[in-house]
Amino acid sequence: MPTVKAYAATSATEPLVPATIERRDVGPKDVLIAIRYAGICHSDIHTVRGEWGPITYPQVVGHEIVGEVVEVGSDVTTYQAGDRVGVGCMVNSCRECENCRAGLEQYCLNGNVGTYAGVDRDGTITQGGYSTHIVVDQDFVLRVPEAIPYEAAAPLLCAGITTYSPLAHWNAGPGKRVAVVGMGGLGHMAVKIAAAMGAEVTVLSRTLAKQDDGLAYGAKEYFSTDDATTFEKLANHFDLIINTVSAPLDVDAYLRLLRLDGTMVNVGAPPEPLPVTMFTLFGNRRSYAGSSIGGIAETQEMLDFCAERGVAPETELISADQINEAYERVMSSDVRYRFVIDTATL
Amino acid sequence: MPTVKAYAATSATEPLVPATIERRDVGPKDVLIAIRYAGICHSDIHTVRGEWGPITYPQVVGHEIVGEVVEVGSDVTTYQAGDRVGVGCMVNSCRECENCRAGLEQYCLNGNVGTYAGVDRDGTITQGGYSTHIVVDQDFVLRVPEAIPYEAAAPLLCAGITTYSPLAHWNAGPGKRVAVVGMGGLGHMAVKIAAAMGAEVTVLSRTLAKQDDGLAYGAKEYFSTDDATTFEKLANHFDLIINTVSAPLDVDAYLRLLRLDGTMVNVGAPPEPLPVTMFTLFGNRRSYAGSSIGGIAETQEMLDFCAERGVAPETELISADQINEAYERVMSSDVRYRFVIDTATL
Repeated sequence: MPTVKAYAATSATEPLVPATIERRDVGPKDVLIAIRYAGICHSDIHTVRGEWGPITYPQVVGHEIVGEVVEVGSDVTTYQAGDRVGVGCMVNSCRECENCRAGLEQYCLNGNVGTYAGVDRDGTITQGGYSTHIVVDQDFVLRVPEAIPYEAAAPLLCAGITTYSPLAHWNAGPGKRVAVVGMGGLGHMAVKIAAAMGAEVTVLSRTLAKQDDGLAYGAKEYFSTDDATTFEKLANHFDLIINTVSAPLDVDAYLRLLRLDGTMVNVGAPPEPLPVTMFTLFGNRRSYAGSSIGGIAETQEMLDFCAERGVAPETELISADQINEAYERVMSSDVRYRFVIDTATL
Repeated sequence: MPTVKAYAATSATEPLVPATIERRDVGPKDVLIAIRYAGICHSDIHTVRGEWGPITYPQVVGHEIVGEVVEVGSDVTTYQAGDRVGVGCMVNSCRECENCRAGLEQYCLNGNVGTYAGVDRDGTITQGGYSTHIVVDQDFVLRVPEAIPYEAAAPLLCAGITTYSPLAHWNAGPGKRVAVVGMGGLGHMAVKIAAAMGAEVTVLSRTLAKQDDGLAYGAKEYFSTDDATTFEKLANHFDLIINTVSAPLDVDAYLRLLRLDGTMVNVGAPPEPLPVTMFTLFGNRRSYAGSSIGGIAETQEMLDFCAERGVAPETELISADQINEAYERVMSSDVRYRFVIDTATL
């Protein structure tokens, strides 16, 4: 069991600290990856602070992982040493339920194994990407195309696929009007991907502070949701709304922006139930839906799409000793648009 | 302006009484219909009692109307005297908005004109089907196939189309598991239509009192929602849930019964907002949607479908002087499954 360097949470309230963790020996179907970069996702913060339920400490988080293959198990044929690879939010699933068989492991009916704070098939708690190395089953490893720089690839593994999946599933493309609610890590990726798909993109954000960015990333219009006239102007307008905001919002107000057969999809996850009025859903035969990351095959498709279209996240590179400061900046929305940790500094 | 006999509400609290109302003269595009039967819909009761907002009295309700054409306007080519016809929940719409142009007049962005308690294009308040005659624009008149008895045709114009439309839109058919929540006027039609479409139908009802009926109408299974194990047994099971219940229910509990890409569609309309938890929608990429009656072309399609497949509602024929008693019985769910008024008794 190799011991590797990492940055870990030791409690819900204390700063993350340097640590060492053990990775499992490389099994026949495993890939040992030397991690180059790891993105910081808001979920990392929710998890280490126990906001999504109690966890076991020490815990290493991070599920936007890119690096190079160092070693592969005896049964691994897909990857070899030196390959550019990535790992996203899952490292295993049951592979037997109807959702796994449909290639949508994120909806595994027996529960997929999260890249961190999950219970792996051997009973151990999974440890994430703020680390120098990770051992992952080959079926949950992605190939990072040469055209995507390592640093830019990291946020695609969560922020990228989380927005690509609903955009693809609900057919964003030419002739479709897509609204992106929130202009953070997920939101800025949703804008870039939806625009690359050919959709007409509108950003709905509390303020206009990031308007220039939104328009530069491909949005056609940008509106402040603090301005009540926004909701009048855009009534019955959108085919698809991707809501990236985790805070509670007035669902009915946004649903009323949907035209015939329009869908609002939440990818942000407010923990509290939100009220929905049936007469709002009746109008225009509207739908309210949820979407969770994406399947492995779809994640590869997203990486290939981003490579081909030149879609990449905006990143700010940090060293390991800046992680705690970065967490504070994520909490105050002071990042454009994704922190990426250089794991050489661990 | 012909004066015709009707049964009208004179206030929100008093019983309906015999009355006379005026119908407009037959215009160039109008059809004058001698009404034979009119169904009683729960919406009629909500409306006359002011539960969906204040209305002007006297008000005649009823939007499940069948009868014979008596006279047509000079520009009417589709219908002639003697034709068997029906009128449903709408008698007009703007015909210009994108939804009207898509043939989905029920979602008219300028507001369709309800068959009763609506404001017609001439500014008058529309009066419904508890009446001997009605004058309707030809574009909102349906043809009742010979194979459907008049009495059975009436409830198809609301209960039938309201359930047919979402079943057709969300692709109920062979290989699809459809749950129908509630076994009333709408619910029993949903069971019959979904079964005729070839879907595997399950009824979810508070009690098992109507189980024999449900199975006879084509359901494969029937479960009590008062039994908590129902929600465990059926987790991740259905492709489509048609919720016909107007009372508030635990939306999350029902959503959890949906399998991958499943949708729960409300056709019942609880006035209060209902809480929905995002993590429930995340699982299986579930959707929660609303559906309102159906378009005119789709209503004709539904009538033709029911004629061809021998689908008909279960009705109890009443005379006009039983309307108030029938209202009380609807309120206490004491009807199997739809009251139909014989307008010869008006």
